[in-house]
Amino acid sequence: MKHRYLDNVPLSEAREKILRYLEDNSFTYKTEAVPAASAFGRITASAHYAKICSPHYNASSMDGIAVNSSDTAGAGERTPVILSRDRFTPVDTGDPLPEGCDAVIMIEDVIFSDGGEAEIRSSARPFMNVRQIGEDICMGDMLIPSFTEITPALAGALLAGGNLTAQVIKKPLFGIIPTGDEIVSPKENPEKGEIIEFNSTVFSGMLREFGAESIVYPIVPDKKELLRAALGKAVKECDAVLILAGSSAGRDDYTKDIIEEAGQVFVHGIAVKPGKPAILGAVGNIPVTGLPGYPVSAVIIMNEIVKHIVDLYYKRASSKKTVTARLGRRVVSSLKYEEFIRVTLGAVDGRLVAVPISGGAGVITSFTKADGILRVNQNLEGIEAGKEVEIELLSPIEKAENSLIVTGSHDPVIDEIADIMKRSGGKLSLTSSHVGSMGAITALKTRTAHMGAVHLLDEETGKYNESYVKKYFPDGDVVLIKGIKRVQGLMVNKGNPLGIKDFSDITRGTYINRQGGSGTRVLCDFLMKKYGIDEDSVRGYYNEEFTHTAVAAGIKNGNADMGLGIISAAKMYELDFIPVCDEEYDFIISRNAFDSEAVQTFLEILGSDEFRERIEKLGGYSLWS
Amino acid sequence: MKHRYLDNVPLSEAREKILRYLEDNSFTYKTEAVPAASAFGRITASAHYAKICSPHYNASSMDGIAVNSSDTAGAGERTPVILSRDRFTPVDTGDPLPEGCDAVIMIEDVIFSDGGEAEIRSSARPFMNVRQIGEDICMGDMLIPSFTEITPALAGALLAGGNLTAQVIKKPLFGIIPTGDEIVSPKENPEKGEIIEFNSTVFSGMLREFGAESIVYPIVPDKKELLRAALGKAVKECDAVLILAGSSAGRDDYTKDIIEEAGQVFVHGIAVKPGKPAILGAVGNIPVTGLPGYPVSAVIIMNEIVKHIVDLYYKRASSKKTVTARLGRRVVSSLKYEEFIRVTLGAVDGRLVAVPISGGAGVITSFTKADGILRVNQNLEGIEAGKEVEIELLSPIEKAENSLIVTGSHDPVIDEIADIMKRSGGKLSLTSSHVGSMGAITALKTRTAHMGAVHLLDEETGKYNESYVKKYFPDGDVVLIKGIKRVQGLMVNKGNPLGIKDFSDITRGTYINRQGGSGTRVLCDFLMKKYGIDEDSVRGYYNEEFTHTAVAAGIKNGNADMGLGIISAAKMYELDFIPVCDEEYDFIISRNAFDSEAVQTFLEILGSDEFRERIEKLGGYSLWS
Repeated sequence: MKHRYLDNVPLSEAREKILRYLEDNSFTYKTEAVPAASAFGRITASAHYAKICSPHYNASSMDGIAVNSSDTAGAGERTPVILSRDRFTPVDTGDPLPEGCDAVIMIEDVIFSDGGEAEIRSSARPFMNVRQIGEDICMGDMLIPSFTEITPALAGALLAGGNLTAQVIKKPLFGIIPTGDEIVSPKENPEKGEIIEFNSTVFSGMLREFGAESIVYPIVPDKKELLRAALGKAVKECDAVLILAGSSAGRDDYTKDIIEEAGQVFVHGIAVKPGKPAILGAVGNIPVTGLPGYPVSAVIIMNEIVKHIVDLYYKRASSKKTVTARLGRRVVSSLKYEEFIRVTLGAVDGRLVAVPISGGAGVITSFTKADGILRVNQNLEGIEAGKEVEIELLSPIEKAENSLIVTGSHDPVIDEIADIMKRSGGKLSLTSSHVGSMGAITALKTRTAHMGAVHLLDEETGKYNESYVKKYFPDGDVVLIKGIKRVQGLMVNKGNPLGIKDFSDITRGTYINRQGGSGTRVLCDFLMKKYGIDEDSVRGYYNEEFTHTAVAAGIKNGNADMGLGIISAAKMYELDFIPVCDEEYDFIISRNAFDSEAVQTFLEILGSDEFRERIEKLGGYSLWS
Repeated sequence: MKHRYLDNVPLSEAREKILRYLEDNSFTYKTEAVPAASAFGRITASAHYAKICSPHYNASSMDGIAVNSSDTAGAGERTPVILSRDRFTPVDTGDPLPEGCDAVIMIEDVIFSDGGEAEIRSSARPFMNVRQIGEDICMGDMLIPSFTEITPALAGALLAGGNLTAQVIKKPLFGIIPTGDEIVSPKENPEKGEIIEFNSTVFSGMLREFGAESIVYPIVPDKKELLRAALGKAVKECDAVLILAGSSAGRDDYTKDIIEEAGQVFVHGIAVKPGKPAILGAVGNIPVTGLPGYPVSAVIIMNEIVKHIVDLYYKRASSKKTVTARLGRRVVSSLKYEEFIRVTLGAVDGRLVAVPISGGAGVITSFTKADGILRVNQNLEGIEAGKEVEIELLSPIEKAENSLIVTGSHDPVIDEIADIMKRSGGKLSLTSSHVGSMGAITALKTRTAHMGAVHLLDEETGKYNESYVKKYFPDGDVVLIKGIKRVQGLMVNKGNPLGIKDFSDITRGTYINRQGGSGTRVLCDFLMKKYGIDEDSVRGYYNEEFTHTAVAAGIKNGNADMGLGIISAAKMYELDFIPVCDEEYDFIISRNAFDSEAVQTFLEILGSDEFRERIEKLGGYSLWS
């Protein structure tokens, strides 16, 4: 077993190295001709000029009669002019002006005699009701400059100007090589030890957004000669190569060695978190990037390195959309790295708030939920809550402006409400995060959420939530809305092998706990006190999960024998369930947000038939009315 | 010859009629399953839940050794624990945790003895360095709600959660039927009377942007039975039909009659300008829209009717992005219609300015250049310059913010500079409009442009531009930059059939003039005065064109025998050229904008070798240095 320590090159320096090398080695765009009629979204490689005029002849712009204007001189209400059949020609809109004619009189302004003569009562001036040649486009006019996206109207203008093809920048082709013995193509029932290879899908999609095409090669096992062959093939067929290097240091070394054999490696290890174990190299003028195996790490390298490679190819400046937001929670950062923190964005009290998302580099869902990225410079140890920060947008700012931010205790019903809200077809969406019931109170106090989902038991009164609201919001700037009743209990394996009867039995096996601050943890601690159970006597007390489903998954998988949770989670995982108590899962809503469309829609959904049907299907819930 | 008068139904009423009918007749989305790996950009038809956990087993998150944590109890710097070969298993990142193990110790923290034993100096807690099952995704978790666009990360999450396919909204298929005897498919050399059919391309592209697919049927000649057959086929094969009705009233009637035969027509004639002669109908629950023949009219109906039909299909709210801008020029509007004015947008003196674009409904280039639409309500007779107006965006607002607004006299060199600017790869672009030299002065005075292009002859001094700047900008809030010298002259047909020698000969044939306020018109009037030529003795004096190329095209086509213009235009159209004078084509630049990146880039380009090469190729220009 060997281990090679990585470099820790600052991001801008690492990027500069690869980009400068590529620029010096003529890495740039190729061009191709595509039919103008389907060139939408493509980028012009050169200026396009009209080859013909549009219209390319003098055309009637009305239905009427074409005349020689000099024949109509003097025509007036009292001095009508009669044109004989040979002095005019009926024309429809778009017809060419006949020889000898220079004007068109609208059909409405003509009176035809039985003999077919035309009587007109006002004179025509030359080129009246005529679209003269070149009215829209003149031959030689520039229709589109270089480096410009072809819109539908521009595609039409190209055709109108006689350009049947457009000379555009050929999209760069990226070859994606997934590697690893344990990596398998996506499947519905993977075996233990098989890791589903979904990174290539994420990167294909990102490349598409960058303006590149991609080809995903078959997965290469951890054999040097196989990886060598795969790279050799890819550099022949593509403009750039991505090797999904896996996160094992051993495999990283293969990748690095093989790129070095065929070309050169500029950087192995960038001072970013996540994303450090990236490899930047090239074979000739084909950039070869080794991406870390963890999806979030790799996404950062895609955005910070690979996107810039695509921009260099297109010879365009790299740019990012940013917004300013208030930081919703303190972030701590290492001096060793530039850190990239995924955040959700929402407009609370009229100001944008960015709330960091928890979850490590392996958590793709921390990216699916992210609206933006907070970049923390290497020389900062962190940023305090409340500070104004710059956020790089991952989703349109309109999404943040129309998001209802719900935080607090985890329950699948929140996701069901989010789904119903989306199905209403409006702009509204619901952003939720699982920070526990006490987290909800903190978020409302710091004005980083519109609404908190809570189930907090008052040990003295035995009642839920009310006393907490009174204690933490003495000024009454929130409203407590009764939500749902649900049953909490112990989830245990099918058949209840340990014969658990009630909570006092939790020391008979191993336990999975919920994180501190969650309502379920408060309940756990209350019950332990009630039954006089000591923390250290509960095996697994310190093994914390963040959701009911995560606890259920752990029990199902044998990580522990039991854990507190709700019926719907037990049902999903086919676990047995020993009811412990009925809970009140309620919503604390900021008074400022209460009248908003988003909150009102949320409350409507809470009372809807569709919601009732959905929670019945989940099981273990009841409504107040 | 018959003529049927159209309805004049207000837009909102017309739209409501068709949408309500479609809603009542279950016009809505169909769904389809697509591979998750290529579902980017598609819209989910339902909520998607994880079918498996990710990871779906307990996985090592480090390279190291897997152990049972209880074996490591008490390990410390001074109390190392030695694990025999059978008490640990080497694991790589991603490997499943072996049976009996519950933690991983990083390889860096292990010292291996020659006998293969492992010495460790700190104890492991349960699940240390282990990605527990479901750390990223738990089975049963909602991965994506309904009606949500599948991003690359979401596609990855679907695969990680065991969803190999995504249930998405099937894009609606629009059948496009172009009609008309004189309509031909795009070609490079159309005959007189052939109208190039590029509208179907524009609408295909727009439908793509709306989220729909399209099929373009062969062009249908003006025969009732053929159109009937085409419509019959399209309603069978598609979710919606567009008939490109042509602008002739006769053809409109065909279209209307045939839709009525097969189904019903709700509206024929909407109170909008442009766009009036639209037909809204349906066959069963297939909407059939008759689009006007003029491209700009049809684009308005596409945006105002067809887009809403697509939105109804998707069950989503229609929305438009708008900005507030200062209106750069007065617009006059009819009380008969709601009017849609195309505007360019630019940021002048830090404020957005919307400048109306001239050009009728037949002018597709008025759309290719437009950044937005100003909507003038039917009950308004117009809007004064300087008013704050709401503009519906057609291009990203960033474009407007990074545009250099150049207005005034027309010369192809401006387009060449625009092209060079785009090729520099930055965000900058150049928006130009042809309003003549005096228009440039007005634009600078009203702060609706950054820069004006002028060639204004002072009849008294015989000098160019300087005296105008002094007269109109006495406060010196502009800078005059010398541009290029160019030769003006008379363009005449090849071989100079009329034997024109100099400007005094213009009465020997017909003439095409330039619009009032253009520098070339000022020159024309100066020369006429000089030679004592009377307006009425110049045949065609009142036939005005807006560009040099339009004048050249008119002469080439026989609309007139001659016109004033520049050598490059004569060269493009293979016309003969009789030099009249040397002109100074200069730039007046707002002092506020002078230091901007855009202006400085413009000036750099003016002095560049590339620009010099390009104007040499155009011909008839020289530089000052």
